[in-house]
Amino acid sequence: MVGNSNRVEHYGGTERSTNITIFSSESEYMDAMSQPPPEVHKVCLPPSTTTFQKLRHRLSEIFFPDAPLDRFKNQTWFRKFILGLQFFFPIFVWAPNYNLKLLQSDVVSGLTIASLAIPQGISYAKLANLPPIVGLYSSFVPPLIYSVLGSSRHLAVGPVSIASLVMGTMLGEEVSYTDQPILYLQLAFTATFFAGVFQAALGLLRLGFVIDFLSKATLVGFMAGAAIIVSLQQLKGLLGIVHFTNKMQIVPVLTSVFQRTDEWSWQTIVLGASFLLLLLTARKVSMRNKKLFWVSAAAPLTSVILSTLIVFCLKSKLPMVKTIGHLPKGLNPPSSNMLYFQGSYLGLALKTGIVTGILSLTEGIAVGRTFASLRNYQVDGNQEMMAIGFMNMAGSCSSCYVTTGSFSRSAVNYNAGAQTVVSNIILSATVLITLLFLMPLFHYTPNVILGAIIITAVIGLIDYEAALKLWKVDKIDFFTCLSSFFGVLFISVPLGLAIAVGVSVFKILLHVTRPNTAALGNIPGTHIYQSLRRYRESQRVPSFLIVAVEAPIYFANSTYLQERMLRWIREEEEWISANNESTLKCVILDMTAITAIDTSGIDTICEVRKMLEKRSLQFVLANPAGNVMEKLHNSNVLESFGVNGLYLSVNEAVNDISSSWKSQPFP
Amino acid sequence: MVGNSNRVEHYGGTERSTNITIFSSESEYMDAMSQPPPEVHKVCLPPSTTTFQKLRHRLSEIFFPDAPLDRFKNQTWFRKFILGLQFFFPIFVWAPNYNLKLLQSDVVSGLTIASLAIPQGISYAKLANLPPIVGLYSSFVPPLIYSVLGSSRHLAVGPVSIASLVMGTMLGEEVSYTDQPILYLQLAFTATFFAGVFQAALGLLRLGFVIDFLSKATLVGFMAGAAIIVSLQQLKGLLGIVHFTNKMQIVPVLTSVFQRTDEWSWQTIVLGASFLLLLLTARKVSMRNKKLFWVSAAAPLTSVILSTLIVFCLKSKLPMVKTIGHLPKGLNPPSSNMLYFQGSYLGLALKTGIVTGILSLTEGIAVGRTFASLRNYQVDGNQEMMAIGFMNMAGSCSSCYVTTGSFSRSAVNYNAGAQTVVSNIILSATVLITLLFLMPLFHYTPNVILGAIIITAVIGLIDYEAALKLWKVDKIDFFTCLSSFFGVLFISVPLGLAIAVGVSVFKILLHVTRPNTAALGNIPGTHIYQSLRRYRESQRVPSFLIVAVEAPIYFANSTYLQERMLRWIREEEEWISANNESTLKCVILDMTAITAIDTSGIDTICEVRKMLEKRSLQFVLANPAGNVMEKLHNSNVLESFGVNGLYLSVNEAVNDISSSWKSQPFP
Repeated sequence: MVGNSNRVEHYGGTERSTNITIFSSESEYMDAMSQPPPEVHKVCLPPSTTTFQKLRHRLSEIFFPDAPLDRFKNQTWFRKFILGLQFFFPIFVWAPNYNLKLLQSDVVSGLTIASLAIPQGISYAKLANLPPIVGLYSSFVPPLIYSVLGSSRHLAVGPVSIASLVMGTMLGEEVSYTDQPILYLQLAFTATFFAGVFQAALGLLRLGFVIDFLSKATLVGFMAGAAIIVSLQQLKGLLGIVHFTNKMQIVPVLTSVFQRTDEWSWQTIVLGASFLLLLLTARKVSMRNKKLFWVSAAAPLTSVILSTLIVFCLKSKLPMVKTIGHLPKGLNPPSSNMLYFQGSYLGLALKTGIVTGILSLTEGIAVGRTFASLRNYQVDGNQEMMAIGFMNMAGSCSSCYVTTGSFSRSAVNYNAGAQTVVSNIILSATVLITLLFLMPLFHYTPNVILGAIIITAVIGLIDYEAALKLWKVDKIDFFTCLSSFFGVLFISVPLGLAIAVGVSVFKILLHVTRPNTAALGNIPGTHIYQSLRRYRESQRVPSFLIVAVEAPIYFANSTYLQERMLRWIREEEEWISANNESTLKCVILDMTAITAIDTSGIDTICEVRKMLEKRSLQFVLANPAGNVMEKLHNSNVLESFGVNGLYLSVNEAVNDISSSWKSQPFP
Repeated sequence: MVGNSNRVEHYGGTERSTNITIFSSESEYMDAMSQPPPEVHKVCLPPSTTTFQKLRHRLSEIFFPDAPLDRFKNQTWFRKFILGLQFFFPIFVWAPNYNLKLLQSDVVSGLTIASLAIPQGISYAKLANLPPIVGLYSSFVPPLIYSVLGSSRHLAVGPVSIASLVMGTMLGEEVSYTDQPILYLQLAFTATFFAGVFQAALGLLRLGFVIDFLSKATLVGFMAGAAIIVSLQQLKGLLGIVHFTNKMQIVPVLTSVFQRTDEWSWQTIVLGASFLLLLLTARKVSMRNKKLFWVSAAAPLTSVILSTLIVFCLKSKLPMVKTIGHLPKGLNPPSSNMLYFQGSYLGLALKTGIVTGILSLTEGIAVGRTFASLRNYQVDGNQEMMAIGFMNMAGSCSSCYVTTGSFSRSAVNYNAGAQTVVSNIILSATVLITLLFLMPLFHYTPNVILGAIIITAVIGLIDYEAALKLWKVDKIDFFTCLSSFFGVLFISVPLGLAIAVGVSVFKILLHVTRPNTAALGNIPGTHIYQSLRRYRESQRVPSFLIVAVEAPIYFANSTYLQERMLRWIREEEEWISANNESTLKCVILDMTAITAIDTSGIDTICEVRKMLEKRSLQFVLANPAGNVMEKLHNSNVLESFGVNGLYLSVNEAVNDISSSWKSQPFP
């Protein structure tokens, strides 16, 4: 759109000049518009407020956009107390109305997610390089805490793949579980504690918008990248490889897979491949028919039972197949004494805690919101953050690692008819029974089945359709998605995420640094002024140039906009002299979309006004937004524009200025 | 503006309800608007372009907003060659028309700035911890180069205080000039070289907008902070202190001053104080009366001559007063062999080069633009960057350190009547004569006079009026200014600058993260819809809620906007039920100021639409901008809105929907 095609951009196609009428003078134009004599409305300042009021308004919009205190207004003290209790402990909202019918639904859904949560818990713990039992511990305490504090009715709480993976990678790159199991456990619990503190702090300080900076595009790319890495890492278990990298980039993982072909074990491969096929088929069936959701929900537990039986029966013939081995019976041991608050790895634990905290928060909130919107109830983001945060802080003291609401289990929960968080309590109870009595049954469960379960779970994270849609709708979003995808694959999780957030922020800055500008024309018979390029029916108004700027004017774009406005005028004048049109006399700046201005922007407006004055061109402003108007007023710029320099709409500006010219002899 | 005053914000004052009429039903409202039957215009997509065309347009707006190639269009090859030559060497623009009269003016102004440049050059070199002679070298070669490449007619080139100070501090913190003079010189020249490369690269790659991120607010704070530090550092010379910190933060500097009271020398203090008074008085005189600009221009050289004479005559009685000492006669020695491209200090040189490069560029460009706008000619930012960059690269090979256009000397140049860059050539010639013949005269010049000259120069950088104006107009700009001020005073120059840039960028993000939203009403008798809060004459339209969002809808604000829109609707419904108004039936989103949207934003629109559908509320969009419309179209969102979900203006939406209700029986 530069060079030769400039004119196209300017006036919506060169062919326009042949098939539309352009009024040759403003008097003719005025006659064509059968309007009453122009009425001019004053542009108002917003109601005057003190700096303190403004600050208060700004802060309340930043931290309390949902006005959470509104409900406490005009209530008795007792009612306020009850509301407060309900606010902090949503259990008080639903518990009074809980009944047997709801319990029935919740028991069914609770048992269903338990059958999914137990094998997933064991698998995800492996993903985090933790002992499988920690995965079960983490499916016991956190759901109980969440059922008291959480506001989502369908969230199924427990370990999740992404957070497990990230914790495993970040800790595993500096500390090996096999070499220093105690230190590794200490760091995992400490990271969980920090994740909880971070999450609860975001909620308490109402900084929930921090997670908004992980845009959907970033997450699509990130999850696809993570899923690919995780799946490839499972080749360790599926192929029976013993020596495997603890790195997480794609290059070392693939190297490990193909350098160790001598360690591949055909028995393991056959077992793994058949169960992977079973699980993937079950997943496919459930996806085709939503009513058969229980097929994929039951598949993991079935596979675990089946494979355990097979290995138990054939244990003499399958010595190569690694099994989970002995798991201790009993409840979560306390682990607050294992928190690690000093020493050289504190920074690592803190960093891991923040990254896993923000990722698990993003997943938990997104899942909660999704199901809330399906059932038309509200989930308060900040409150959810506190619930998830406290759940993780409590978890870190009871041998749990990072947990949050899992998408796959919540979907099963929802489909199984869960009505309240009681399904999480049922889940807990089932895990409790497992921990107390059923642990020996897992002795012969083969590791390979855990790999198959993980692959089946993470494969759904690769959302190529979403990526395609990003490409179709927004190229920069697609680029963000790609950068987080490749960042995660080839660099590392935190850096990949950081790059994607950087690209997203850069996109915002780019929009501000190089905003759209357009020349406007009138749509005949209306008061509407629209882009000449976009609306072929819009007509240029003789002797006027109406420029719209579609962004705030800030330090970052003030120089650009100044140059750009002068170029619009230059091009307009060139066009006029080439087409023998009536000379340019007035430039109108349509400020409707200039939603903010700073001191550099104000200087730009002054500068343009001065330059146009030297060229004997009138320069007027139309429809400045409230805060822009206030700043123009405070900086005394409006005085230099005089009485007729400011209009409420482009239409009023054109009419008033045209009629003032008509009342004077033509220059 | 929360809590009790919510209603005020919503409807522009509670008192409104008593003194304005609100139409009680939409039919009454329609009768009141004596409009012809509503005409509805289609919302157009922008002309369809391919991804490649869009990318090309975007890139041309980013890198060539001024369309520099336009002038080459439709020209003969010879003419194109001449234009290209003029583009790269602006000397070819003015040289052909140069005449004796212009030369006369340039000689006068050249001699005037030389009288200022020689003492300033020596002083600023001291500020950078460099030998005084380097300051003179730097006033000889760079002006010559600039006169060939530069496009500003009034820029007076040479060393400047800010860049000198920053170079002195950044290098001085790691390498001491007194201990390792050769290494220090090497690093200074190398930093100059990198500064030049960085500057020229910004110009060549047309990345000039990078310097726009140093907003005026940042610079006001930064320069004031730097000026205070520099002035305090000069107390070393003015008080005659021998042992002084080489740090640049305010705390160590003040400590140095008051810990070394035993080293204070009264002779030095008397000499320094009297000349400082003389210089400040001269400055005051020139500021009061612009015609007397030559008083402050001549004062430094006069002071140098006077003080040298005093010290020379009284040298036996003033042994405490330190003098410059021996300076070698002769032209700039080549220094390309001193560039330091490997070794442990390479990073330091690079960092110093980039920071001094960006600072000197900012000053040079700002000065050039200021004087160009006074005389109504254009200075091309990118070309100036190349000129300054090549000047510094050449300088680094001829014993010069970082130079740029100095504000104080350019102002003198302008006031002395400079017409072209020939005044820089005259300056060079004068410095040449000084270097060849007059160096011994500086032997007895006391160091204290250099301190006095520096203080007088930098004191003008403290622009408290600009800071006051920032406070008045824009509180966040003022905060940016304060953070760079205190950052520079208490932390360090690069960090202070980085913090201020961070605050500026944060401000942009904040505007996007928490945009303004407003409920609109109609101004009776017009097609104009304006904020109910701001325009007391605007009236709410019964059964409609018209919400305007004043920012692009991005991932960073999509959640907020969704919540905020639902809150508008909730508050509207509460207000309606409290005032027995006609029920809400339609929500119009005025998209005029929504200048962009991404995939998250599109999801938000869909989400709001679904929620409102569940509550049987109609949701329509008005006036989406071109690229927003395109994205809504590409993502197939428009289909769900149907034929009557999209209007060109709020007015058409209200009229069309109202009349469709009228034609149906009332629900």
